[in-house]
Amino acid sequence: MSAKRQPIEYEDASPEVRAVYDDIMATRKTDWINNFWKVLAHDPIALRRIWANIKEVMGPGTIDPLVKEMLYVAVSASNGCRYCIASHGSAARNKGMTESQYSELLAIVGLANETNRLVTALDVEVDEPFL
Amino acid sequence: MSAKRQPIEYEDASPEVRAVYDDIMATRKTDWINNFWKVLAHDPIALRRIWANIKEVMGPGTIDPLVKEMLYVAVSASNGCRYCIASHGSAARNKGMTESQYSELLAIVGLANETNRLVTALDVEVDEPFL
Amino acid sequence: MSAKRQPIEYEDASPEVRAVYDDIMATRKTDWINNFWKVLAHDPIALRRIWANIKEVMGPGTIDPLVKEMLYVAVSASNGCRYCIASHGSAARNKGMTESQYSELLAIVGLANETNRLVTALDVEVDEPFL
Amino acid sequence: MSAKRQPIEYEDASPEVRAVYDDIMATRKTDWINNFWKVLAHDPIALRRIWANIKEVMGPGTIDPLVKEMLYVAVSASNGCRYCIASHGSAARNKGMTESQYSELLAIVGLANETNRLVTALDVEVDEPFL
Amino acid sequence: MSAKRQPIEYEDASPEVRAVYDDIMATRKTDWINNFWKVLAHDPIALRRIWANIKEVMGPGTIDPLVKEMLYVAVSASNGCRYCIASHGSAARNKGMTESQYSELLAIVGLANETNRLVTALDVEVDEPFL
Amino acid sequence: MSAKRQPIEYEDASPEVRAVYDDIMATRKTDWINNFWKVLAHDPIALRRIWANIKEVMGPGTIDPLVKEMLYVAVSASNGCRYCIASHGSAARNKGMTESQYSELLAIVGLANETNRLVTALDVEVDEPFL
Repeated sequence: MSAKRQPIEYEDASPEVRAVYDDIMATRKTDWINNFWKVLAHDPIALRRIWANIKEVMGPGTIDPLVKEMLYVAVSASNGCRYCIASHGSAARNKGMTESQYSELLAIVGLANETNRLVTALDVEVDEPFL
Repeated sequence: MSAKRQPIEYEDASPEVRAVYDDIMATRKTDWINNFWKVLAHDPIALRRIWANIKEVMGPGTIDPLVKEMLYVAVSASNGCRYCIASHGSAARNKGMTESQYSELLAIVGLANETNRLVTALDVEVDEPFL
Repeated sequence: MSAKRQPIEYEDASPEVRAVYDDIMATRKTDWINNFWKVLAHDPIALRRIWANIKEVMGPGTIDPLVKEMLYVAVSASNGCRYCIASHGSAARNKGMTESQYSELLAIVGLANETNRLVTALDVEVDEPFL
Repeated sequence: MSAKRQPIEYEDASPEVRAVYDDIMATRKTDWINNFWKVLAHDPIALRRIWANIKEVMGPGTIDPLVKEMLYVAVSASNGCRYCIASHGSAARNKGMTESQYSELLAIVGLANETNRLVTALDVEVDEPFL
Repeated sequence: MSAKRQPIEYEDASPEVRAVYDDIMATRKTDWINNFWKVLAHDPIALRRIWANIKEVMGPGTIDPLVKEMLYVAVSASNGCRYCIASHGSAARNKGMTESQYSELLAIVGLANETNRLVTALDVEVDEPFL
Repeated sequence: MSAKRQPIEYEDASPEVRAVYDDIMATRKTDWINNFWKVLAHDPIALRRIWANIKEVMGPGTIDPLVKEMLYVAVSASNGCRYCIASHGSAARNKGMTESQYSELLAIVGLANETNRLVTALDVEVDEPFL
């Protein structure tokens, strides 16, 4: 038995897992499920919970859907999560992100990581007008 | 002598530092300099270099200026840089970010940090369509 | 010559490295050495030092041995160390961690990473009763 | 107006926020609300969502409640979230964590952070038996 | 079309990209370009900007060139950037870093990561003489 | 009773804690103990263990003592450990680090954090000559 959890395909999934898969596909208007959910499906409670979170947080709100995906990509790039960059990068491209915008996004991620460290290391006091 | 670098005010600054301060105020159409630059000014070469980076990366491009600031805030929030959240949060608010949008931004930062760890810990393979 | 350090096998190891390998196997009641130690063995002083730390910290104490391994897995999952998740995950399973417990552990790691960022970004003051 | 969100007290809270506060107090059998929730309450949707997550993940399961809190503290300590260490440390103490156990927990957090970096920097291959 | 950016070889590069490649090779007295620059070249502006930063920061100054590379390796090892450890590790070896020094560097990276977490978790006050 | 551990002064310390304090002062040729050790002293076993690690790793070796301290400062700055930057920064200054060198060190820390993220996000392949 391997410790690494393998993706659970739709045909092998329990009814409760299938219900989440169905909702993911209906919400995203797509006909396939990406590996994150299929691996998470070993824990049906977590699968349902995390999907409910994603659906609520990434669903309609006051931030534009494309910008939401770009924010997700930026945090994932900053954290070095290769899978998340690929999956949310794909979602962002599907919503209209251009290669040029992706380049600018990465430039911001890189620069923020640089100045975040400088500011913290220099222990800079927050300016009155920012409080 | 303290190890902590104190902000260098305009009146105490060297000509090369003042030149950067002047360019920051002109570019931002403001009449004051925030502490990050005034502390960085102990190293005039770094001051000039980092400002040139910020000016280029955060200047006009293919991503909307407000979105650029929101991306900066998101990475800074993910990294826990209190000063950067305050300063770029202020810039984002000045460019129109509402409190509601800030709430959604934070929700994305939080959730991305959760799923980034789950994906990495579960060692999920990148799906073919994302490559 | 490769920059990447290859594992040093028992038969190729110096007496001082063998002595550590022997102690690892005796302490763990096993007959093999995992790659971490075999790669670390290029620096016999670090090998001896890190093993002494692991032996002391992960040895008998007031926290149950299974819980100790679970804490190690949780931190490693949070840090994204794939090897450490695999090795300490294996140790935890050998000590009785069930798949269900591993799922709950990962859920905690994910959620803590989410709330850690929210709390820091919101700059929440520590409540009096927690001090 | 300050950018920093102040805690929203029960008497100033909307009905939907009060409903979450009530559930927190009932679930935890306590009569006060800690600052995290009171600051998060500026976004009632996030308040409800994050509380639902915490309630599910930290509620009854296959891991002992004290161990769950210790895992939360360990991740928070690794991430340097002072507030989370204080709040979940308090919860763990209330559930029976001794000072001696806390010392051992911190030792594991420290050592895991050390070996996580060594393993990653040395690019150690995962051993066959761990797969 | 793949989302992953492939390296842009010299013969396929635009004049502005070639100009940076030429400067990299001239500055480093070498006849090849490593993959980081060839992938970054999809964004010629970022390519020029990041190279200008590296050239200035890693160029002649008051810290010995070998020590500069070792500092770069140490931060990269701490951040788990495999490529950066390999590339700056190679640069450090070319400037004279011995295997023994590399071992000591890694030991410091590991130990600093351990004590950084202990200090933060224990919320240690900065001593008067360090201020 | 406060959850926060207070520094244990020499006159209040047990003989085993005093023995470590004495060794710290003798090794460092100083007459005071900084807060990290005094807080760690609540766990005499960890105090002895961590000190033994620091003494071995930061003691005489093939890397110059000043460079060792600078590496420690660089990792601590990258990790945002304010106390560690202050304490090891002080040690580095005592061993000769100039303000100019500290500026260059910070510039490297910042830039490495930027390029580390870019390299990881762009998933750059390690070049053959670096292997």
